[in-house]
Amino acid sequence: MENSNYNITIIGAGNGGRAFAVYLSRLGHDVTLLYRSSKYVENIKSSKTILSFGYISGSHKLKMITNNYKKAIENADIILYVVPASAHLSITKEILPYLKNNQIIILNPGRTWGAVEVYNAIKNNRPKLQIHVGETQTLLFTCRKIHDFGVSILKIKNSVDFCFYPEEDNKILFPIINSIFPEFNLVDDIRETSLNNIGAVIHPVITVLNAGSITRKSDFHFYEEGISKKIANLVEKVDQERCKILRYIGVKPISLIKWANRVYGCKATDYYEVFHQIESYKNIKAPVSLRVRYLTEDIPTGLVPLSSIGKYISISTPNINSIIVIATTLLNTNFYKIGRTIERIPALKTLLIKKLVKKRPGVPYTLLQAQNPIFYNNFE
Amino acid sequence: MENSNYNITIIGAGNGGRAFAVYLSRLGHDVTLLYRSSKYVENIKSSKTILSFGYISGSHKLKMITNNYKKAIENADIILYVVPASAHLSITKEILPYLKNNQIIILNPGRTWGAVEVYNAIKNNRPKLQIHVGETQTLLFTCRKIHDFGVSILKIKNSVDFCFYPEEDNKILFPIINSIFPEFNLVDDIRETSLNNIGAVIHPVITVLNAGSITRKSDFHFYEEGISKKIANLVEKVDQERCKILRYIGVKPISLIKWANRVYGCKATDYYEVFHQIESYKNIKAPVSLRVRYLTEDIPTGLVPLSSIGKYISISTPNINSIIVIATTLLNTNFYKIGRTIERIPALKTLLIKKLVKKRPGVPYTLLQAQNPIFYNNFE
Repeated sequence: MENSNYNITIIGAGNGGRAFAVYLSRLGHDVTLLYRSSKYVENIKSSKTILSFGYISGSHKLKMITNNYKKAIENADIILYVVPASAHLSITKEILPYLKNNQIIILNPGRTWGAVEVYNAIKNNRPKLQIHVGETQTLLFTCRKIHDFGVSILKIKNSVDFCFYPEEDNKILFPIINSIFPEFNLVDDIRETSLNNIGAVIHPVITVLNAGSITRKSDFHFYEEGISKKIANLVEKVDQERCKILRYIGVKPISLIKWANRVYGCKATDYYEVFHQIESYKNIKAPVSLRVRYLTEDIPTGLVPLSSIGKYISISTPNINSIIVIATTLLNTNFYKIGRTIERIPALKTLLIKKLVKKRPGVPYTLLQAQNPIFYNNFE
Repeated sequence: MENSNYNITIIGAGNGGRAFAVYLSRLGHDVTLLYRSSKYVENIKSSKTILSFGYISGSHKLKMITNNYKKAIENADIILYVVPASAHLSITKEILPYLKNNQIIILNPGRTWGAVEVYNAIKNNRPKLQIHVGETQTLLFTCRKIHDFGVSILKIKNSVDFCFYPEEDNKILFPIINSIFPEFNLVDDIRETSLNNIGAVIHPVITVLNAGSITRKSDFHFYEEGISKKIANLVEKVDQERCKILRYIGVKPISLIKWANRVYGCKATDYYEVFHQIESYKNIKAPVSLRVRYLTEDIPTGLVPLSSIGKYISISTPNINSIIVIATTLLNTNFYKIGRTIERIPALKTLLIKKLVKKRPGVPYTLLQAQNPIFYNNFE
């Protein structure tokens, strides 16, 4: 397939959004950058350029930078969401009136069930619209924004899993996506990109078990010092509960250790070593507040979906649930209610049953019932 | 009632055990002190005296100091347990062969269900023995041991709730106990001393939410710095779950705030203020390990019994359960299994039903069933 130029709109002008803008502009695409807050974008706005350093360096021209959803969306071929997953739904509501047939939306990343939620939110409101929604398993870049003018791209990952939802779109549309992003690796099951959400296994545990330090603003390195051997026990249990769910529904799980060894090239054999072998983790500081993406994003779009599936298929997730309950109480925010649950996104139930029947014909339907009312009622 | 002299054996030569020895020796009783570890008791052993400072000061003679259970128990009129509640059962096993009719055992304090557990352990093994077991709601003293020779008594509390189990013993035996300990205040329901376990509401939450700091041995003041407003939310929810259980079973709950205002004379109106108003909390340092009484004692003999009753009467305790689950995983110790549950101490079930029928005749028996299998199965 020959290279084409596309109108690509990037929603989000933070770390990842800027990296995508640089990456795509260099390839000759027409890039529109939509910023949600005008904080730290003044220079990019006035110059319509982003300076980049590191893996890609130079000055990169934007076609447009705007906070006007109509302008940003109406001429886009491809729309990239590069925002916390907890904003996927509100952004979908913003762009809904301006979407046109055959536009492609890609969530970077989808966290857990991002593409399913966004696809269904659009279809529920505009059932006749031909829309295509895909998601990645993780962000393509390791990057940090630089003030109001640039971005530092520390790494472009070698391989990032990608899938459309519904998966029927993969066949025709993935070649287009792959011509733009050769690093994307097609998987044929949306559950693989969704349920190998490693961030959700790591961040909430470290944040909750260090809540004291964080709230008294005591300085520590998040990964290097935030994890002791005993806290690593908890990360391991959370990961085991996740992997058990994946195995039950017929998806091959990638354990945190396997993922880290693959992505970061370390040779860890236990959950404590992982965090002390990853070089780029070493200098990352702890957050200064508990109202941080590690909880506000990773709980509702990571741990809550896992808990919800676990409840549905009767696989207990006590360690995951405990972290959700404590985060709910700490922040006085009902994460289970606002999170990506089977109750809130009925399409997930259909998806689970359909896939279970396909992949595990022996599993009785009667098992697929919620059986843990007390514990969950208390989220109300 | 005139004063008599008794043979009193104190089991445990730590902070509280030494304070009791000083207190009782001063009143002219014959005091036997049983030490469990010979660490830090050399001087007391060789001199058979304890030096005391603070509220009581002087040099106090012991009748005997020993680690021999037979010698310590066979001539005792009254036996005081002054040890972590997690040791109540192992001590009971040690003294079982030497107990005689009409000896009185007092747990200082009983934590939750201490007297019930000890009484039944004795009755199950020596059903014909006439034994009397009582418990206090909290330790009579605020005190700290001093090296291998003494103790500092910072406070003798004005009023400490006391009850025998079964409560029939109160009528005849409490006057004897009260003649020795005028600070003891008789309550007529063992559930009052057992379920107003305030330590269990406070310690595990602070410890778990500061697990990161504690395991990396970062220095902080346990109460003064360990509790932020967000962490106080969690203490509040744990206390509310406890109070809800008490109300349901017809026991008037004492909230943490009410308790603190009464015991420490503060005027706190919320759960954050409490910890910053109590003067004697200010300089208490954090523990240097997670394997500390705040978890190893307060979880199995405090939060686990509450969770177990909650499950039994269908009152959900998600915040309490979450702390239990996380402590279980952190320390790789099945606290629910070893803790004081209705499953492990069947007498608790009888007690609950009997009291419910007496105090709340309208409560249907059918409600009194475990209904939360998934969550609890995972403790196995």
